[in-house]
Amino acid sequence: MSPYLAEIIGTAMLLLLGDGVVANVVLNKTKGNNSGWIVITFGWGIAVFTGVFMVGRFSGAHLNPAVTLGLAMAGKFPWEQVPLYMLSELTGAAIGALLVWLAYRRHFDETTDAEAKLATFCTGPAIRSYGNNVITEVIGTFVLVFGVLYLAKADVGLGALDALPVGLLVLGIGLSLGGPTGYAINPARDLGPRIMHALLPIPGKRDSDWSYAWVPVLGPLAGAVVAALLYRCIA
Amino acid sequence: MSPYLAEIIGTAMLLLLGDGVVANVVLNKTKGNNSGWIVITFGWGIAVFTGVFMVGRFSGAHLNPAVTLGLAMAGKFPWEQVPLYMLSELTGAAIGALLVWLAYRRHFDETTDAEAKLATFCTGPAIRSYGNNVITEVIGTFVLVFGVLYLAKADVGLGALDALPVGLLVLGIGLSLGGPTGYAINPARDLGPRIMHALLPIPGKRDSDWSYAWVPVLGPLAGAVVAALLYRCIA
Amino acid sequence: MSPYLAEIIGTAMLLLLGDGVVANVVLNKTKGNNSGWIVITFGWGIAVFTGVFMVGRFSGAHLNPAVTLGLAMAGKFPWEQVPLYMLSELTGAAIGALLVWLAYRRHFDETTDAEAKLATFCTGPAIRSYGNNVITEVIGTFVLVFGVLYLAKADVGLGALDALPVGLLVLGIGLSLGGPTGYAINPARDLGPRIMHALLPIPGKRDSDWSYAWVPVLGPLAGAVVAALLYRCIA
Amino acid sequence: MSPYLAEIIGTAMLLLLGDGVVANVVLNKTKGNNSGWIVITFGWGIAVFTGVFMVGRFSGAHLNPAVTLGLAMAGKFPWEQVPLYMLSELTGAAIGALLVWLAYRRHFDETTDAEAKLATFCTGPAIRSYGNNVITEVIGTFVLVFGVLYLAKADVGLGALDALPVGLLVLGIGLSLGGPTGYAINPARDLGPRIMHALLPIPGKRDSDWSYAWVPVLGPLAGAVVAALLYRCIA
Repeated sequence: MSPYLAEIIGTAMLLLLGDGVVANVVLNKTKGNNSGWIVITFGWGIAVFTGVFMVGRFSGAHLNPAVTLGLAMAGKFPWEQVPLYMLSELTGAAIGALLVWLAYRRHFDETTDAEAKLATFCTGPAIRSYGNNVITEVIGTFVLVFGVLYLAKADVGLGALDALPVGLLVLGIGLSLGGPTGYAINPARDLGPRIMHALLPIPGKRDSDWSYAWVPVLGPLAGAVVAALLYRCIA
Repeated sequence: MSPYLAEIIGTAMLLLLGDGVVANVVLNKTKGNNSGWIVITFGWGIAVFTGVFMVGRFSGAHLNPAVTLGLAMAGKFPWEQVPLYMLSELTGAAIGALLVWLAYRRHFDETTDAEAKLATFCTGPAIRSYGNNVITEVIGTFVLVFGVLYLAKADVGLGALDALPVGLLVLGIGLSLGGPTGYAINPARDLGPRIMHALLPIPGKRDSDWSYAWVPVLGPLAGAVVAALLYRCIA
Repeated sequence: MSPYLAEIIGTAMLLLLGDGVVANVVLNKTKGNNSGWIVITFGWGIAVFTGVFMVGRFSGAHLNPAVTLGLAMAGKFPWEQVPLYMLSELTGAAIGALLVWLAYRRHFDETTDAEAKLATFCTGPAIRSYGNNVITEVIGTFVLVFGVLYLAKADVGLGALDALPVGLLVLGIGLSLGGPTGYAINPARDLGPRIMHALLPIPGKRDSDWSYAWVPVLGPLAGAVVAALLYRCIA
Repeated sequence: MSPYLAEIIGTAMLLLLGDGVVANVVLNKTKGNNSGWIVITFGWGIAVFTGVFMVGRFSGAHLNPAVTLGLAMAGKFPWEQVPLYMLSELTGAAIGALLVWLAYRRHFDETTDAEAKLATFCTGPAIRSYGNNVITEVIGTFVLVFGVLYLAKADVGLGALDALPVGLLVLGIGLSLGGPTGYAINPARDLGPRIMHALLPIPGKRDSDWSYAWVPVLGPLAGAVVAALLYRCIA
C-alpha cells in the first residue's frame, strides 16, 4: 500500500470512529445518547489506536498534519513528503466524516439541535475566546507531538506496536485538556469534516462556523512546532 | 481441541459475557442496572478479548460468521471449513445466551419490560429503518473485519496475542458505531440468541422480532465482503 | 519470599483495592460516592492486576481458593500445598479488609446505612434466592477458572505477565455477571472480610449475614470444579 | 537529557494531565464538567503513564519524592541524587499546574466556587481529620511504592515498559483509596501546585489551605518508608 493511500485510510478510520462517538453521544435517539465524556474520550482514543495499528506499517500512521510537521521539524520525516501526507490526511478525514453521516443518517434527521449536528463533524469552543482557545490547542497538541517524537522511528513515524501508547495518550489529552475546546489537536480532524458539514445536505444544519475554523488548524500546527523545537533542544 | 469445539466454546464465552452485560444493565434490580453505554461497550469488548485469548490457539478465534467469511474471501482461511465454522459459532452463541438466562433468571422474572428482555438476547434498532440499519451494520462490520484481516495469520485467524487489539477494536466499534443498531456486527451473535429467546420459557416475553432478524445477518456479511474486497485490492 | 507469604500479601492487596473501591462508592461523603458500576468493576479488575503482578513470581498468584482448587484438579498444582494456600488467601483477605476499614474509618462513622457498611466487606445478593445465587456464582467462577487454566504454567499458576489478561477477565466477569450477586467468585474474598466485619467495632453495623455466607464459598468452589473437569475433558 | 531535566519534564506532564482532568471535571462550562470519578481517575492514570513513557529512559521516571525515597531506602537508587531529584519533581509539578491554568484560564474566570479552583491545584480531605487523613495517604502510597519496588530496575527506577503497569496501579489507587483524601500519594504533586495556587493571580481564589499542606507531604513519605522496610524484610 502506498503511504498516501495508507494515510487516507488510517485518517478515515480515525474520523469514522472519532466523529462516530460524538454522533452517538450528541444526536437524538441513539443507544449512547448523553453517555458522557468518558465515552467520548475512549471513542477517540480507540479511533487513534485503530488507525495506527491498521496503517502504521505502511505510512508511519501520522493521521495528523501536526504530527507530520513535528516529525519533519525534528528530522524524523522527509520534508518533500509533507504536502502530500497532509493532503491525504485531510482527504481521509473528510471520508471518515462522510461515513459517520451515512451510519447515523436517521439520527441527524431526528435531531433538531443544529449545534449538536455541527459538533458531530468538527470542534467548537466551550467559551469562545480565540486567544485562549489557541493556547489550549497549542498545549494539547504539544503533549501529543512531544509524546509521538519519543515513540517514532527515524524516517517513518509510528508502527503497529505504538498504537496502544498513542491511543492512551490521546485518551489522556481528551480527558485532561479537552475541556475548553474539545481537543482538535489535529488540523485534518477538524477541517476535513467541517468541509463535509458545509457540503452535505444535512436537514436543519447551521453554518459551519468558519470564523472559528482557523483555531483548530493553526493551534495544533503551532503546538507541533513547540514540541519539535523542545525535542531538538533536549533530546 | 478441535477447531469446531473451540469455536463453540469461544462464541459461548463471547455471548455469556456480551449478553450478560446487557442483562446487568437493562434488567430490573441488578447491581449494574442502568449503568450506561460505557458498561455495555466494555462488557462486549472484554467478551471478545476473553473468547479470543481462550480459543485463539485452537481455531483462530473467529467467533463470528462475518469474520469467517472475510478471512475466506481474503484467502486466509480454507473455504471448505466455512460452513462448519459458521454452524459452530451459531451453536456457541445460543449456548452463551442460555447461560445468561440461567445467571439472571430471577431478574428476568422481576422485569416487566418485554423489550428489555428481548434486548438481553439480540439487537434491535434505535430507529427502525431497514435500509439505514443495514448500512450501519455494514459500516461497523467493515471496520471489524478490515482490522481482523491486518491481524490474522495465514490459514488460521487470530491468536491469543490478538485478543487485546481485537477487544479494543470491538470496544471502539460499540462506542462509536453502536448508536443506531446496537452493533450486532456478527450474524451468530444475533441469530443464535434470538432463537433461544423464541425457545426459552421466559415469563412475559414479546415475540422475537423476526421481521428485523435478517438485518444483523445480512448487514454483517455484506460488511465482511466489502472489507475483504478492499483488502485484496490494496494489500 | 515464601509462596504462603506471597499469597497473604497478594490477597491483601486484592482486598485492599477491591473492598476499597466498594467503600469509595457506597460510603457517605467520599470523593467517589455513587460513582457507579464502572468504577466498582474497574477497581476490582485492577485489584486483581495488582495482586498478580506483585506476587506472581513467588506463588503463582492464585489469591483465590477456587483458583487453587481448579489448578490442583487440573493437575497444574500439587495437592499437598492446597490447604496452606487456601488458609493464606483467607488470612490475606481479612488483612486487606482491615486496611480498608483503616483507610475509610471516618466514612464508616458518617454512614448510617448498615447494608452499605456490610457491602464494603462482603457480597450480598440483589435478589435473595439461594439456588439461583449459587448458579450465578458457579457460572462466574467457571469463566474465571477456565480462563486461568489456559494462562497458568504447570505447577505454578500465574506470572506477572498474566496480570493484565486476568485483570481484564475479572473486569469482564464483574461487568457481565456481577449483576445478581456482586461476583464473589472467590471464597476468601468473601469469607475473610465477613469475619472482619463481625470482629471489628464498626459503629451501627448490622449482623454479618451468615445465612448467606455459604453461597459465595460453595458456589465458587463448585464453579472451579466444573471448569477443571471441562478443561481436563477437552484440553 | 539529564535525569534532573527529565524529572522536571516528566512531573510537569504528570501534573498537566493530572490537574488538567480535575479542571475539566470541576470548573464551570467545560466539556467534561461533572463527568465523575471514572474520568478523574483515568486522567491521573494516563498522566502517570505519559510521564513514565516519556522520561523513563532518562531518569527512571520517579516523578514523586515518595518514590525517590522508597527506591533509595530499598537500595535501588543512590542517596546522593535524592535531594536534586526531589527538587526537580517539585519544580516540574509547579510548571504542570501553571500550564493547566493557562489551558483553562477562561474557565477559572467563569467559576465562582473557590473550593473548586483550589481542588484544581492540590488535594483536600473529604472529611477533615488529620490523623485519619495521614493514615489514608500512608496506605495509598504504600501500595504505590511497594508496587514500584517490584517493577524497578537496580539503580534506576522505571523504564518505558513500566508505564502501563504503573499507570494502571495509580488508576487503581485512585478508584479504591482516593475517596477520603483525593490520593495525593506524592508530595510534589500536592505542594508544587499549592505554591502555584498561592502565587498565581486567580480571580476569586481562597487561601491555599496551608494548614492541610503537611498531610499530603508527610503521609506519602511515611508510606514510602513502610513500603521500603517491608520490601527489605521480605524480598
